[in-house]
Amino acid sequence: MTEQPSPAPPKPMVGVVMGSQSDWETMRHASEVLDALGVPHEVRIVSAHRTPDRLFAYGRQAESRGLQVIIAGAGGAAHLPGMLASVCELPILGVPVESKALRGVDSLLSIVQMPRGVPVGTLAIGPSGAANAALLAAAILARQDSGIRDALRSFRASQTDRVPESPA
Amino acid sequence: MTEQPSPAPPKPMVGVVMGSQSDWETMRHASEVLDALGVPHEVRIVSAHRTPDRLFAYGRQAESRGLQVIIAGAGGAAHLPGMLASVCELPILGVPVESKALRGVDSLLSIVQMPRGVPVGTLAIGPSGAANAALLAAAILARQDSGIRDALRSFRASQTDRVPESPA
Amino acid sequence: MTEQPSPAPPKPMVGVVMGSQSDWETMRHASEVLDALGVPHEVRIVSAHRTPDRLFAYGRQAESRGLQVIIAGAGGAAHLPGMLASVCELPILGVPVESKALRGVDSLLSIVQMPRGVPVGTLAIGPSGAANAALLAAAILARQDSGIRDALRSFRASQTDRVPESPA
Amino acid sequence: MTEQPSPAPPKPMVGVVMGSQSDWETMRHASEVLDALGVPHEVRIVSAHRTPDRLFAYGRQAESRGLQVIIAGAGGAAHLPGMLASVCELPILGVPVESKALRGVDSLLSIVQMPRGVPVGTLAIGPSGAANAALLAAAILARQDSGIRDALRSFRASQTDRVPESPA
Amino acid sequence: MTEQPSPAPPKPMVGVVMGSQSDWETMRHASEVLDALGVPHEVRIVSAHRTPDRLFAYGRQAESRGLQVIIAGAGGAAHLPGMLASVCELPILGVPVESKALRGVDSLLSIVQMPRGVPVGTLAIGPSGAANAALLAAAILARQDSGIRDALRSFRASQTDRVPESPA
Amino acid sequence: MTEQPSPAPPKPMVGVVMGSQSDWETMRHASEVLDALGVPHEVRIVSAHRTPDRLFAYGRQAESRGLQVIIAGAGGAAHLPGMLASVCELPILGVPVESKALRGVDSLLSIVQMPRGVPVGTLAIGPSGAANAALLAAAILARQDSGIRDALRSFRASQTDRVPESPA
Amino acid sequence: MTEQPSPAPPKPMVGVVMGSQSDWETMRHASEVLDALGVPHEVRIVSAHRTPDRLFAYGRQAESRGLQVIIAGAGGAAHLPGMLASVCELPILGVPVESKALRGVDSLLSIVQMPRGVPVGTLAIGPSGAANAALLAAAILARQDSGIRDALRSFRASQTDRVPESPA
Amino acid sequence: MTEQPSPAPPKPMVGVVMGSQSDWETMRHASEVLDALGVPHEVRIVSAHRTPDRLFAYGRQAESRGLQVIIAGAGGAAHLPGMLASVCELPILGVPVESKALRGVDSLLSIVQMPRGVPVGTLAIGPSGAANAALLAAAILARQDSGIRDALRSFRASQTDRVPESPA
Repeated sequence: MTEQPSPAPPKPMVGVVMGSQSDWETMRHASEVLDALGVPHEVRIVSAHRTPDRLFAYGRQAESRGLQVIIAGAGGAAHLPGMLASVCELPILGVPVESKALRGVDSLLSIVQMPRGVPVGTLAIGPSGAANAALLAAAILARQDSGIRDALRSFRASQTDRVPESPA
Repeated sequence: MTEQPSPAPPKPMVGVVMGSQSDWETMRHASEVLDALGVPHEVRIVSAHRTPDRLFAYGRQAESRGLQVIIAGAGGAAHLPGMLASVCELPILGVPVESKALRGVDSLLSIVQMPRGVPVGTLAIGPSGAANAALLAAAILARQDSGIRDALRSFRASQTDRVPESPA
Repeated sequence: MTEQPSPAPPKPMVGVVMGSQSDWETMRHASEVLDALGVPHEVRIVSAHRTPDRLFAYGRQAESRGLQVIIAGAGGAAHLPGMLASVCELPILGVPVESKALRGVDSLLSIVQMPRGVPVGTLAIGPSGAANAALLAAAILARQDSGIRDALRSFRASQTDRVPESPA
Repeated sequence: MTEQPSPAPPKPMVGVVMGSQSDWETMRHASEVLDALGVPHEVRIVSAHRTPDRLFAYGRQAESRGLQVIIAGAGGAAHLPGMLASVCELPILGVPVESKALRGVDSLLSIVQMPRGVPVGTLAIGPSGAANAALLAAAILARQDSGIRDALRSFRASQTDRVPESPA
Repeated sequence: MTEQPSPAPPKPMVGVVMGSQSDWETMRHASEVLDALGVPHEVRIVSAHRTPDRLFAYGRQAESRGLQVIIAGAGGAAHLPGMLASVCELPILGVPVESKALRGVDSLLSIVQMPRGVPVGTLAIGPSGAANAALLAAAILARQDSGIRDALRSFRASQTDRVPESPA
Repeated sequence: MTEQPSPAPPKPMVGVVMGSQSDWETMRHASEVLDALGVPHEVRIVSAHRTPDRLFAYGRQAESRGLQVIIAGAGGAAHLPGMLASVCELPILGVPVESKALRGVDSLLSIVQMPRGVPVGTLAIGPSGAANAALLAAAILARQDSGIRDALRSFRASQTDRVPESPA
Repeated sequence: MTEQPSPAPPKPMVGVVMGSQSDWETMRHASEVLDALGVPHEVRIVSAHRTPDRLFAYGRQAESRGLQVIIAGAGGAAHLPGMLASVCELPILGVPVESKALRGVDSLLSIVQMPRGVPVGTLAIGPSGAANAALLAAAILARQDSGIRDALRSFRASQTDRVPESPA
Repeated sequence: MTEQPSPAPPKPMVGVVMGSQSDWETMRHASEVLDALGVPHEVRIVSAHRTPDRLFAYGRQAESRGLQVIIAGAGGAAHLPGMLASVCELPILGVPVESKALRGVDSLLSIVQMPRGVPVGTLAIGPSGAANAALLAAAILARQDSGIRDALRSFRASQTDRVPESPA
């Protein structure tokens, strides 16, 4: 009996990028939620400051590579989300990673306070924001993909059902 | 000669809502950008605190009414974007309106710091954020609408072209 | 000899609600102070964002169910106290739960900065605020209930008596 | 013909106090809302720092004079609400008056961050907070006074009715 | 042989007061520096909110009891230094104790932002501020006491001498 | 008839210094209060950053010139009070001048957060702080000068008497 | 008689760049100080978000074009200085332009909080920071250019001489 | 055989100074990066507040001793960088050391908000800022020293090469 080749993995719809390895502890929450919703995605490190060419290439090629949404997380003077937004017309969602000294206030302001003309949809500081970026990406994709829409609906219904009546 | 009925206006794809009349000074920038991009939209006042039933009805009916994205602006303890996100699975974009005493810091934190499970894509404080919410809504719609994609591309190209080489 | 049925528990006068299980570590201080003062109360989880229908039902039925005051605690973009205030005319007391990144500054501003027309009486961030919400609820109930007034007076007298003259 | 004495004014149920003349611009919003709701009240200047004896006397005599709630507004290092709470067991509501340099952040933190044991129910910074203190005082009084309850209900219904559908 | 009575301890020149037992961890640094400088002082717990009568009595009697300076430490909505300043004309030095949620920002603003007319000389947040309050009290006393002036001069000279040339 | 020489002006007890001409609008409040209390004082511009030699000379000579207290006001990265404290053992009182962008938060933190070993007694941001620095300087001088003690007592009594019962 | 050609302007040593025309009101202070010191420089608008290609080209070519230092000013989510630093090894000096809502706090944190590996030397918010960036650029150039060193020395000496003894 | 004297160490080009021993944990990152780049430097403790004479001497002699750049780190009311800038015309780079209560916000504002006329090029709070100060110092020296320019170029190229494609 001949072996079947494993099927090609689905083409990623969402790019999850982060400025450094240390951001993964936060950004894996985005990846996990996308997995739970069955949204194909890729995960990359793209440093605005240490790899500017990679940043440009990633942003410039994202749309033609078939990505639909980019989720970008960074901390401190967090320029990655905004600079991706400057070189790419896809929806960019930004996740402020909690920084050590300023607890993510610097990350949040560096991401959310974009000037008129180049938007970044910003989520909460830290893991909750990363998870929510995935949910917002799914809500965007759900506009054209009924499978994701159903998965999102189930996810939220289940989330509601799991809230107990009283604290334990 | 019989009169021709005027054609039905296009069905709104985006809902622009705000907590009070005073937010319009900020939120009209969202409406103006959507107009410039040819995105059909509606504009409503929905107060989370003074008209909670309207808030629930608006959020619950938005998807079946054909809206694809909601842009919500509010100031101070700004609960409108987050509460719409709790009753509606469309992408919700939040605009922190600048408040008097705290300059919109309260608005920003009330909108962006949503708990895990219910996202709001948050833009900058004030008119720039409102304009950017419109651009982000257009980027979301552009995933499925090539007319909006073209309009957005032109908008951004023109924006780039208009940056002068030197200050005057 | 026939068994006596245990007497019905007293009808709750105060509702202590919180946005999630994790808030209980803070909000149990409210419940403990109410117990110490003999104020009958109930404890519930009501998430503004994950269970908006429960929020509406709780707020709308609170007065007819006999509650006199609601104490609501939440963290981050804390919408629970303000949204209860929007659907209920009882006095609402808000407790900002300390959030991880921003230490409760987001919780505090999301609760206290309510717009004109819908008040939330806000207490301090964290357990002290929860305990004080119970004391303020008791002070409100004491206007019409001399038993609670006496209990509150004793509580405060005892609190004064326990302050030592010098540090140990 | 003998003259009819004018009827005695109703005994005040609420004391509206403030730290200085300059706070009146903010605190008159509390008085105006109480007037609109038909709640008898008195208005006084009581400076924690310049008239500490008046502060003590006011707080110590408030309950026996028949007051049911005290609304206290102050700015900067705002000690008036908390010190009234230390000498009086009535519900104390605090209004942070907007300060010049720090925009009321100092006022807010000085009022809301009371230690465990002595609560102040704190409202928003500025005139909105003053108006809301009056509404919260009315909600407290409404627990035992059906006239105030009706007035409050009408006030809120009217407030809801006045929200327009769209911005003008 | 008859026993010699031990000599009366020197009359305290400085009162070190704090709002609660938990402030002692900070305020003992003031006491230790006063000891090192040979400044006679007393240490007391005086809670503005839980023992307002003690506060009034302490402040009103301080000058006639022979105190020359009061050092007052408190955290959160820290009213102790300012209220002592309102009932006492001695120089009052305030030490903001680091609070849990807001790291002493609330303590600092509650102490330093006193209104015109009633000053508190405020030191840094935490133990450094407590130690410095003692040094400032000594500098004040040194204006009229050459022994303290000499002790302070030695203390500072020694402090300068102990700074190494290079880090180890 | 021989002319009487005019009497020598009294030797200054307080030095009021500021970092620049623009600080005078704030610091004149210190000078005015000292005048009102009859405290002889001098007024100087000493810039920590533009005139460091003048700063050193002023601080080093202050005590031998007969000054008893220095009041120093500065804005932004306000190093003047702390650097005077490093070269002078007199009590140094710091006044944070309101800065343009950060409203004096930078001035306040630069002055109050002195490290252990070198204290600055810090007053409120702006003119109130300048006036209060004068009052605190007078309270310090009053420990050894009964004339100033009487003047201070009258000032405070009059200040209390001028607080009206009700707002106008 | 033949006309003499005007001499070629000196080659710019410093590039003064800014994100938009509106930043010129701030950044002209840098240009004016460079003029006063005789430092040849150029002035350009380079928007990180609207003209990312211009940003890359400017940064990549700066060193080979003979620039020695770049001064970059931007406001809000200010990415220009940091992104220039990522594509250019010259010293980059950043000027936070005062933003409307947040007074330049966002600008400052976006510029100064650069991650390890890519530095931006950051100056104060607003015009003072722009002027100081020019002075710091001159101090850098002065290491190798005695004319600029002399000009800087004169500038600073004159600045010291102009500080008056007393306020007027 | 006669012993060879070890060669004289190279003359320091950079002075790394800090306010106290406890700052070394942060500032050693500057020294380590300078070592990695082969930049000769010295390391000193210079306390603005405890050793003002050493501060003056260090700043005044730095240029004649052959230093080209000074890196100064301090925490809290951090006056060291700015005061060195006031007595020395070399480029001064400031590193805000993270303080305990305020996490370096006080350090940052005390260093960066220098008044017009006396610049400090400020880096990020904490170890990243210290490392970046060394890189910026090297970039300044590289303008005149091709060895340092090459070392810096290698350092940055290597830093770029080490960024992995994906998180592990």
